[in-house]
Amino acid sequence: MRMVDLIIKKREGHALSREEIAFWINGYVKGEIPDYQVSAMNMAILFRGMTEEEVINLTDLMEHSGETLDLSVLRGVKVDKHSTGGVGDKTSLVLGPMVAACGATFAKLSGRGLGHTGGTLDKLESIPGLSIQVSGDRFIKQVNDIGIAIVGQTQSLVPADKKMYALRDVTGTVESIPLIAASVMSKKLAAGTDAILLDVTLGNGAFMKDIDQARTLAKLMVKIGNGLKRDTRAVLSNMNEPLGLAVGNALEVKEAIAALHGNGPEDLMELCYEGGAVMLEQAHIAKNYEEGKAMLEKVVKDGSAFDLFVKMVKAQGGDVEYILHPEKFELAKKIIPILAKEDGYIKELDALEIGLSSCRLGGGRETLDDVIDMSAGIMLVKKVGDQVKKGEPLCYLHTNKGIDVINQETEVVANAYKITKEFVAKPKVVMEIIQ
Amino acid sequence: MRMVDLIIKKREGHALSREEIAFWINGYVKGEIPDYQVSAMNMAILFRGMTEEEVINLTDLMEHSGETLDLSVLRGVKVDKHSTGGVGDKTSLVLGPMVAACGATFAKLSGRGLGHTGGTLDKLESIPGLSIQVSGDRFIKQVNDIGIAIVGQTQSLVPADKKMYALRDVTGTVESIPLIAASVMSKKLAAGTDAILLDVTLGNGAFMKDIDQARTLAKLMVKIGNGLKRDTRAVLSNMNEPLGLAVGNALEVKEAIAALHGNGPEDLMELCYEGGAVMLEQAHIAKNYEEGKAMLEKVVKDGSAFDLFVKMVKAQGGDVEYILHPEKFELAKKIIPILAKEDGYIKELDALEIGLSSCRLGGGRETLDDVIDMSAGIMLVKKVGDQVKKGEPLCYLHTNKGIDVINQETEVVANAYKITKEFVAKPKVVMEIIQ
Repeated sequence: MRMVDLIIKKREGHALSREEIAFWINGYVKGEIPDYQVSAMNMAILFRGMTEEEVINLTDLMEHSGETLDLSVLRGVKVDKHSTGGVGDKTSLVLGPMVAACGATFAKLSGRGLGHTGGTLDKLESIPGLSIQVSGDRFIKQVNDIGIAIVGQTQSLVPADKKMYALRDVTGTVESIPLIAASVMSKKLAAGTDAILLDVTLGNGAFMKDIDQARTLAKLMVKIGNGLKRDTRAVLSNMNEPLGLAVGNALEVKEAIAALHGNGPEDLMELCYEGGAVMLEQAHIAKNYEEGKAMLEKVVKDGSAFDLFVKMVKAQGGDVEYILHPEKFELAKKIIPILAKEDGYIKELDALEIGLSSCRLGGGRETLDDVIDMSAGIMLVKKVGDQVKKGEPLCYLHTNKGIDVINQETEVVANAYKITKEFVAKPKVVMEIIQ
Repeated sequence: MRMVDLIIKKREGHALSREEIAFWINGYVKGEIPDYQVSAMNMAILFRGMTEEEVINLTDLMEHSGETLDLSVLRGVKVDKHSTGGVGDKTSLVLGPMVAACGATFAKLSGRGLGHTGGTLDKLESIPGLSIQVSGDRFIKQVNDIGIAIVGQTQSLVPADKKMYALRDVTGTVESIPLIAASVMSKKLAAGTDAILLDVTLGNGAFMKDIDQARTLAKLMVKIGNGLKRDTRAVLSNMNEPLGLAVGNALEVKEAIAALHGNGPEDLMELCYEGGAVMLEQAHIAKNYEEGKAMLEKVVKDGSAFDLFVKMVKAQGGDVEYILHPEKFELAKKIIPILAKEDGYIKELDALEIGLSSCRLGGGRETLDDVIDMSAGIMLVKKVGDQVKKGEPLCYLHTNKGIDVINQETEVVANAYKITKEFVAKPKVVMEIIQ
């Protein structure tokens, strides 16, 4: 078998067999097939697509390109949740403790933020003392003891994806739906849970810009997961505006704490209740959506979801005083209000611009080596559908940067808001559930 | 500027500016842009194509990626001829001396054969003593002295094409018309002649399988050449069957000698007269096609074309006794007739199969390191449109290989002929002239 023949086969629009995909992926991981052939293959896939069978085989072979986690020693149904990325997306910090408090086993490997999208690991690290670098044994023990852990991915999982993603990033082949699906799902499958809930974000702050694309990706990932014997479901969620009101690491942790007390912003609560209800069905804990939602509301009301978050922070070495007294989180030195220039309703709030601005205010990284300012970010006051009066604050910038950055971002963030005279309805965050 | 952005731009179907193409080509030659980005770009070009302006810029930038030949010291109009490759294609050996005998300056850099297609350099090297490795100064002197030289390309011309072609070969991106056109034309332009005649072969023994593709390629190359201020014209020629009767290096030189005496096979003579007449127009030697053809017939008849070939062989160190007495060329030890199994007319003679078979009989190479048996090849007796009786020889295999190869190739070559009971007309070799 020769890689060039496989590239030509794909280029001509034919499907690759499992053996052919194995030749490619195994050869690539071993270093026998060079980057320049894989980048040509990826570009051919971007134009020609893949059949469901091809994507399932690709995912399976990528999953098994390195170690996989064996969670079979853990009791109960192990559930995981993955978002395709967004701005202000602290869902895992809320949803995880909620479903775990209902009895699901929440064992999550998470990632870091890059560019305009935040990462759960960075958010957790804004809690002083908390470690996300946990050995496999300690991870298993923590989940066994308290039913929840959110930690960093080990280097030995899915080496094929690490090589392939780095290559796609510099060769213009990130935007291929089969390659995105195989990348996400190979990592989720290697992490070993029984059930997976995918949050496919959609809108200008997300990777997927239109609903057809997002639905296609979600359906494909659900097919892959179920095809490889994991109960996989997906929600499509709105990411045209940021999720919740907080954007930035410590700010988001504080919002997650409020949400675990039942006091989170409406859209965040909606996503956690709706996504959580699906997960409880997947974990065979709730018979149906309504029962699941009622259980989730109960664990929020009685404080057990919040208690579990405290336990998790403690188990991972974090200072729980910050969780019990969120006012302890240090604020940025400069908090600058952005004021409305006219009366009206918020028509648009550009999630991408807010995400990028938060990043430049110190809250994110452009390359993986950048250091994050945990206190930096943006606290929204007004979101789409809200009424505003001229001179009222739309949001507040939180930053330790100098005046040049502040002046620039004041303008960027003001322009991220579009105000209209006509009434605007509040958008729903959960747009579809795919199962 | 970042290469990944240029790849994405092309992937999305937009045209690259001259500055962008320069960034790519110059960066690639300097080693600043890696193969894996160029292979992704090439695949995107294969799917998206290029505008004429893009291809002209690409060609120009590739041409100037290294040294270019300056032929301005040579008198007269310098003409060159290039074939996109075929089986039995010894045209340059005949056409070159013919047009040079009429007063054109024929300064040709030529290539080697690979796979089923032969190369002019290999054919010339079957003449004992002849050297195709000639310094630039000697090349200029020889052309100045006798009006003709056919030599090997120096390593310093068009480094961008060398890197790019090697990469395309292993990444499934050979078959892109703009990339083929830029590759061919950058080399022809760097070789410095004033006028270029392209022979775009067409059919199963050629790179282009259908006439629309071949015409598109020919027109594009003509546009590129004229766009970059060289008089460029093209003929589309039939390569569904081999050209002439001889396939294999020494066999083809002997056929070229016969053709220079006016005794070549009909299709070879037709291509040389028609292509040569176009070249004489390009060189401003003939006023029109008819005058050009008459001049060519004259230099064949009076022996001056043949004399010039003898002079060229002598100038390049070859033993002219072989040219004056072609029976001196050593024959292969085994000459095996392939006999017709039925009466009828030859309907098809598969050029690709004949080319590959000649290669396996010892007459070609599969990798550039293989050594060629100059005496090996196939002498055709019957071609498309010829009548044949059962038991008559269709052709002869010439080889020094063992019985296994002979048995296998006997079958392959017999199957390369398709015989029918119905009358079949002889095909014309020159299908179109594009100028």
